[in-house]
Amino acid sequence: MADNTNQEHKALWGGRFEGHPERFTQEFGASLDVDKRIWEDDIVGSIAHSHMLAKQHVISEEDMEAIVAGLKRIAGSIERGEFVYDVDDEDIHMAIERALTEQIGEAGGRLHTGRSRNDQVATDMHHCARRMACSCARSLLEMRQTLIDVAEANFGVVMPGYTHLQKAQPVLLSHHLLAYYWMFSRDFKRFMDAYDAADELVLGSAALAGTTYPLDRTAVADELGFSRISENSLDAVSNRDYLLDLVYACAVTSMHLSRLCEEIVLWSSDEFGFIRLDDAYSTGSSIMPQKKNPDFAELVRGKTGRVYGDLVGLLTVMKSLPLAYDKDMQEDKEGVFDAVDTVCDCLRCTEGMVRTMHVCEDRMRAGAQGGFMAATDLADYLVGKGMPFRQAHEVVGELVLKCEKEGRTLQSLSAEELGRQAPEFGSDAPAAVDIDAIVARRNTAGGTGHEAVRKQLARARERQEDDRRSLDAIDAG
Amino acid sequence: MADNTNQEHKALWGGRFEGHPERFTQEFGASLDVDKRIWEDDIVGSIAHSHMLAKQHVISEEDMEAIVAGLKRIAGSIERGEFVYDVDDEDIHMAIERALTEQIGEAGGRLHTGRSRNDQVATDMHHCARRMACSCARSLLEMRQTLIDVAEANFGVVMPGYTHLQKAQPVLLSHHLLAYYWMFSRDFKRFMDAYDAADELVLGSAALAGTTYPLDRTAVADELGFSRISENSLDAVSNRDYLLDLVYACAVTSMHLSRLCEEIVLWSSDEFGFIRLDDAYSTGSSIMPQKKNPDFAELVRGKTGRVYGDLVGLLTVMKSLPLAYDKDMQEDKEGVFDAVDTVCDCLRCTEGMVRTMHVCEDRMRAGAQGGFMAATDLADYLVGKGMPFRQAHEVVGELVLKCEKEGRTLQSLSAEELGRQAPEFGSDAPAAVDIDAIVARRNTAGGTGHEAVRKQLARARERQEDDRRSLDAIDAG
Amino acid sequence: MADNTNQEHKALWGGRFEGHPERFTQEFGASLDVDKRIWEDDIVGSIAHSHMLAKQHVISEEDMEAIVAGLKRIAGSIERGEFVYDVDDEDIHMAIERALTEQIGEAGGRLHTGRSRNDQVATDMHHCARRMACSCARSLLEMRQTLIDVAEANFGVVMPGYTHLQKAQPVLLSHHLLAYYWMFSRDFKRFMDAYDAADELVLGSAALAGTTYPLDRTAVADELGFSRISENSLDAVSNRDYLLDLVYACAVTSMHLSRLCEEIVLWSSDEFGFIRLDDAYSTGSSIMPQKKNPDFAELVRGKTGRVYGDLVGLLTVMKSLPLAYDKDMQEDKEGVFDAVDTVCDCLRCTEGMVRTMHVCEDRMRAGAQGGFMAATDLADYLVGKGMPFRQAHEVVGELVLKCEKEGRTLQSLSAEELGRQAPEFGSDAPAAVDIDAIVARRNTAGGTGHEAVRKQLARARERQEDDRRSLDAIDAG
Amino acid sequence: MADNTNQEHKALWGGRFEGHPERFTQEFGASLDVDKRIWEDDIVGSIAHSHMLAKQHVISEEDMEAIVAGLKRIAGSIERGEFVYDVDDEDIHMAIERALTEQIGEAGGRLHTGRSRNDQVATDMHHCARRMACSCARSLLEMRQTLIDVAEANFGVVMPGYTHLQKAQPVLLSHHLLAYYWMFSRDFKRFMDAYDAADELVLGSAALAGTTYPLDRTAVADELGFSRISENSLDAVSNRDYLLDLVYACAVTSMHLSRLCEEIVLWSSDEFGFIRLDDAYSTGSSIMPQKKNPDFAELVRGKTGRVYGDLVGLLTVMKSLPLAYDKDMQEDKEGVFDAVDTVCDCLRCTEGMVRTMHVCEDRMRAGAQGGFMAATDLADYLVGKGMPFRQAHEVVGELVLKCEKEGRTLQSLSAEELGRQAPEFGSDAPAAVDIDAIVARRNTAGGTGHEAVRKQLARARERQEDDRRSLDAIDAG
Repeated sequence: MADNTNQEHKALWGGRFEGHPERFTQEFGASLDVDKRIWEDDIVGSIAHSHMLAKQHVISEEDMEAIVAGLKRIAGSIERGEFVYDVDDEDIHMAIERALTEQIGEAGGRLHTGRSRNDQVATDMHHCARRMACSCARSLLEMRQTLIDVAEANFGVVMPGYTHLQKAQPVLLSHHLLAYYWMFSRDFKRFMDAYDAADELVLGSAALAGTTYPLDRTAVADELGFSRISENSLDAVSNRDYLLDLVYACAVTSMHLSRLCEEIVLWSSDEFGFIRLDDAYSTGSSIMPQKKNPDFAELVRGKTGRVYGDLVGLLTVMKSLPLAYDKDMQEDKEGVFDAVDTVCDCLRCTEGMVRTMHVCEDRMRAGAQGGFMAATDLADYLVGKGMPFRQAHEVVGELVLKCEKEGRTLQSLSAEELGRQAPEFGSDAPAAVDIDAIVARRNTAGGTGHEAVRKQLARARERQEDDRRSLDAIDAG
Repeated sequence: MADNTNQEHKALWGGRFEGHPERFTQEFGASLDVDKRIWEDDIVGSIAHSHMLAKQHVISEEDMEAIVAGLKRIAGSIERGEFVYDVDDEDIHMAIERALTEQIGEAGGRLHTGRSRNDQVATDMHHCARRMACSCARSLLEMRQTLIDVAEANFGVVMPGYTHLQKAQPVLLSHHLLAYYWMFSRDFKRFMDAYDAADELVLGSAALAGTTYPLDRTAVADELGFSRISENSLDAVSNRDYLLDLVYACAVTSMHLSRLCEEIVLWSSDEFGFIRLDDAYSTGSSIMPQKKNPDFAELVRGKTGRVYGDLVGLLTVMKSLPLAYDKDMQEDKEGVFDAVDTVCDCLRCTEGMVRTMHVCEDRMRAGAQGGFMAATDLADYLVGKGMPFRQAHEVVGELVLKCEKEGRTLQSLSAEELGRQAPEFGSDAPAAVDIDAIVARRNTAGGTGHEAVRKQLARARERQEDDRRSLDAIDAG
Repeated sequence: MADNTNQEHKALWGGRFEGHPERFTQEFGASLDVDKRIWEDDIVGSIAHSHMLAKQHVISEEDMEAIVAGLKRIAGSIERGEFVYDVDDEDIHMAIERALTEQIGEAGGRLHTGRSRNDQVATDMHHCARRMACSCARSLLEMRQTLIDVAEANFGVVMPGYTHLQKAQPVLLSHHLLAYYWMFSRDFKRFMDAYDAADELVLGSAALAGTTYPLDRTAVADELGFSRISENSLDAVSNRDYLLDLVYACAVTSMHLSRLCEEIVLWSSDEFGFIRLDDAYSTGSSIMPQKKNPDFAELVRGKTGRVYGDLVGLLTVMKSLPLAYDKDMQEDKEGVFDAVDTVCDCLRCTEGMVRTMHVCEDRMRAGAQGGFMAATDLADYLVGKGMPFRQAHEVVGELVLKCEKEGRTLQSLSAEELGRQAPEFGSDAPAAVDIDAIVARRNTAGGTGHEAVRKQLARARERQEDDRRSLDAIDAG
Repeated sequence: MADNTNQEHKALWGGRFEGHPERFTQEFGASLDVDKRIWEDDIVGSIAHSHMLAKQHVISEEDMEAIVAGLKRIAGSIERGEFVYDVDDEDIHMAIERALTEQIGEAGGRLHTGRSRNDQVATDMHHCARRMACSCARSLLEMRQTLIDVAEANFGVVMPGYTHLQKAQPVLLSHHLLAYYWMFSRDFKRFMDAYDAADELVLGSAALAGTTYPLDRTAVADELGFSRISENSLDAVSNRDYLLDLVYACAVTSMHLSRLCEEIVLWSSDEFGFIRLDDAYSTGSSIMPQKKNPDFAELVRGKTGRVYGDLVGLLTVMKSLPLAYDKDMQEDKEGVFDAVDTVCDCLRCTEGMVRTMHVCEDRMRAGAQGGFMAATDLADYLVGKGMPFRQAHEVVGELVLKCEKEGRTLQSLSAEELGRQAPEFGSDAPAAVDIDAIVARRNTAGGTGHEAVRKQLARARERQEDDRRSLDAIDAG
């Protein structure tokens, strides 16, 4: 039995306990494997706390210096991978506190003055959440830059635009790629909002009710770079909104990635043939020698599932929890880390895929000739000649049906053939169905016309600079 | 067979079609029941579009005037409940267009110049989403006001503060209620962000590629009060982020409501007895004469499920959809409307519940005496006398165990009894466990001390004014 | 104020209440709009209950006869659409009870003897859930029959088989369609399991603790066709597992439908061109005359979202609810009805789409020639000549690369060209890459070979008969 | 650059590839960390496959013996933790294949004859899913046994029964605990159904289309203990229903656990005080010496979130995937393992909590006196004296209101006081409100009466035996 119990806890929780937790429950309750990764946030936070305690004369300068030196030694040893975790370390906070007390003795215990595990953990997670929001934002910037670069490098390439996966109207490939640019720009903003949600110091809330020590919370916020302090201690220790915001931002980004990767998979197919992925972003088959699979695009698309799951998980955890802290909330971390890591990896992978893919311009152009995509412009031509739109739509619809049955394109129809269908068709009618001309004509703001897309590119570059500057400012500190 | 097909569609879709949809598929594909509610957004949008078309000389002034007059007549008839929908009206847009053409003839068809159903529907939804975001924000303001009012009206009432649903430290009821104030304030911001996400004119994107007509998109944006125009037509017709942002804001608000309502249910129980709900917010049992059930709190808590479901639904719809518009996206509306309606109703119901509930101050105070909540302060007392915290924690833990076995409170211990446990306890020790004093001591920023809560209330009122002003500014247009 | 309160409730809930609910909360708490549809289950259940009460001498024969006659009259009036709901009818149960009492006076009240709203509603929902499970199962049988029919009608048609949406090996279209047959067969079983989960009489559990009346629960179960009675009253009134099972079955079916419809969308594209949907299952565009969109396939695919959402909704509602009945559970119905209706409609729509689609055999066969799908068999040929598989894989991979660069198919390589690559290639090598022969060779059980698929079809027909028989047996009662 | 690429893959995928994957993408695509745990399933499956290949004369007896011996050596080395993974081992299957080839040379390659990674992985997962379903079922049996044991040990203890968390009617604690017994019994059945769904051999489906080798699939099924073989190769390699069924069973079990743990948290509160958790299943606070928190119950409740998330994750992955295998499906494993591990751990933890908890019989009985729970029986008493139920309900409601205002219980009312309220109350009226008598009266099947619960316990024990026998039969093979 002795093997399965843990006398250490009695010491920590004091005289109220007569029994000991069993080994299994102790492991079940532990979170060290997961929260290990916030060690740096924990140490930085503890240093700021001890600085303030000394400044406020709650602890002595000597104690403070011993604490800070001890924490720095521990940080070094964790960084070098030399730190030895104890079997009884439930979480990273206990591990660090234990090591500190082993090193500097009683003074180590004074670090915990005026704070509790509840506000300490919450502070660490706010600190870490800001960092994670920035990582995601940085990855998004790179993805966006690549979309701009590839859009510029392929300016002028025409491809079919689709609705309902049916060919609709020809568009510039650059226009198509920039559609994703703006999606990822909205995602960037969502991560900046998540950063802002996390940017609040909760330390000083203690277990749930605040503390009796004369803490200077603003000083700690300043040292840790938080722009404001929390308003209510009960809320502060039980608030997980900032993590939800972060996971939600990940979920929407994943959704956007799933759309882009769906298209990469489609475009890599033999049927579309619009792109060839670089060998570095493809895999083969051990059985079928001809296979070159867009595995990574599929994997990114599939990983949407886990990120959606992470969001549902955290929403479920928080449902119906009474104030203030409940242990359920310990389940917040794993999903957040998973969502953030997944999205960063997926962005990196997709960025490389797009950067290195070979655009098969000829296949795109050939695709743009098919599918009768000039039909709208042909109808517009008739409208220009005075025919009501509904009638023009009907006339062109019949031309399409005829071409389809004969296996021809609209471009193959001569002026004479057109004239037989409707006398309004003149000798300039064939020009109306020229694919490049059709694209070039759509120059209202946001349209696919060459001029409009050039302006769009300029605005995208501008936005890129703005966003990069905001992020740099945060990173600078 | 004739009964089950629909020749009307052939007319609309033109010469390309030889067969007709069956009645069942037509109904399956229809969205009128759901999108009926955006009729006003549709009409306002169409008026702005026709104004601009005339200004740009795309249509004549006469046509424009006929269109606008016709649309206003239709608006009037819908408002008065007199509008007659046709069995073939697939959606509200077709219904209005059909009625317009019936009224003003050919000119009605010109309204559709330079736009498509894709950008028209998206415009209407952006317009409506802004309105919905404001409704939710307005309901939140009222909920928040009531929390402030009830917190002020009950200032000084002491209750147990909990962690793990175990009594932890006494707090002010006002502090507890204000915790929710700040949650709902964050929700307010989320709805303002959702408003901002929707605040973009997409009209002018046409089906997917922009249009050849010389549209003035900025003029339309100005008339409809949109602060910017969309940058990319492919993105514009297939973007549903702004709806996701709205549903996400609803989901987090629902989660907060579920927490508050969980507490209302707990507090209404015979065991807690902290509040008595007004009869107007309770229900009885047809079988058990004694029952007075907090049905509405439970219902609000339960409705969290549908809002979470709405979020999952829309995320699922959007996953892996290739550009640009796909019919899957028609499934966006019902969930959004449901989430918004649910949250507004739940806020209204909970606001009334909180405003009218009777606070049982005596039961709260009695509860605050129990559970040994003074233990922390008793330990702090010993630390003040020079005892290391760990040892103080141990000593007090043993006192708790002793009291628990004897069925006594810490407050019942005399100075002598305390002294027998540890010589550090002096004659002032009993004062350390006075519940009001314990609360009053926690005056660091955000703490539960009377002074700190008074400041918090002031900040809450200030925030209330700021947020009300922002919302009024939006509503004013 | 009088307008907003409801004095009726005081009467029902008796002397304990002094105030009245407001109109808004009353509407908020009402479920009539949703539970109207279980009126028939309610009436059948009440008739069985009153039969038993009379048999057990709890009520008189006369009362029973009056009750039964009254309920039948009410059923008739609901059926004919003549039943008038009262503004105070919270739910269908109250509406029927009120109407009954209006009709037959005091005896109507005796119907409620020995039962409570909690077990009454649960009984109705079990009864209705069985019916819904059967509807879904019936729709699945029809979908499956159509898959068999289309597989048989197109036996011998060869198409490319894909992994990673890359052409992998040629398969029979029949084999491909039958893959969905087996998915939907598993769904059928899931609905039969959901039926079984619902097939339990809970009446007699009363509010939560059972009742003091000498009820004969088995007699009621027999009359209502339930195969067993519930074992524990607390569980019985708060169990929603059988509804979860039903929604889960819907969710998996939706997922399968989303896969089939994804393929229908792909196959309808200009690039694949494998099928042409019937005009009855396509829609056009009011702008683009050439468009013929697979709208219905997209809509079915999109509706997966709402069904997933319904599942998440109900799981969320049930999380953390203490025993026994809590009002949260009233939120169970809408999601279940929505999931069941959606799945039945989607099955019907997809069944029609598949039944009427035109298979473009030539495009499928042409597609099967491309993509180097014979590569595996070519490598197997070399292995047959004694070459180790890894080396054969390498040799064929190089052939593929060469062909790809030269824009040729493997079938276009002459025996000489092959021989130059590897001396093991003999004059019979070209025969190894014949597409029909490749398909025909795969005749292990479950493979795509003609013989294997013929056997599979036979087993599918057999399973169809078995499942139809089971369902008929249930429907027969 | 050399550091970041991987030449190994070229060898495996053969001549078609000119470039190499980068290190990052290779790691991104790897699944070894996750699928390591199915090593045993992989080895057992490979042994069965090689036995069959030899029996069918596809490989020689010598090769088979070398393969089997090699695989067993590898199994031993993995079991002893001595197996060395290579940096290029993408997954466990590649790791084992590589090691085998290193050991026995060319014969190792022949193991892969007639199978592909797609059907190999699917076979391993089916094999493993059966095992996981049994583990969960076994854990459920233990949980259920403990519920029976605790119900028996505390037979006769009376507690309040709740609806809406309001005291409703008194019940036996045993009855309350057995409610969970039946929930977990339904879960058991769900895991048995998930077992059955997994119990199908898919090997022989090869990459997607079956194979040309004369495999004996039934022989492999027999050796691996699968009760049937899959019917369609395309379905077989892309079916993940059996994993969904498993995760769904986990999700419902988690929901049930969250309900039980919610009650454990409530009952452990100072306000309820119905149970005291064993010290081994409680934790303290490093700050508050009095705290004894039901951390483990909260943690179990919180872990519902991750299991729901796992279900949503897998449903999302599978949505809209075209046939046959797509790489997205690699994302199936982690969520399933997480759900299964979580549920097994949670069951173990909760089982221990329930087994060791101290029941505070006095607090339960005291609670049962409060809340006017005798009101229903008092009304029934009046009905027995001939008063219509609605009137009786009204009379008792007024008594409740009176008692509530005076702070009394119904049990404290004398016969005289009752008589003043209604003349029907006789001298036997006080007996009607005796708590034990109220419980004892509810003896219809499934009710809380002592006799009914005794029968229920007998049926629970019987079911326990049946289920244990079924599971033993499966485990026996």
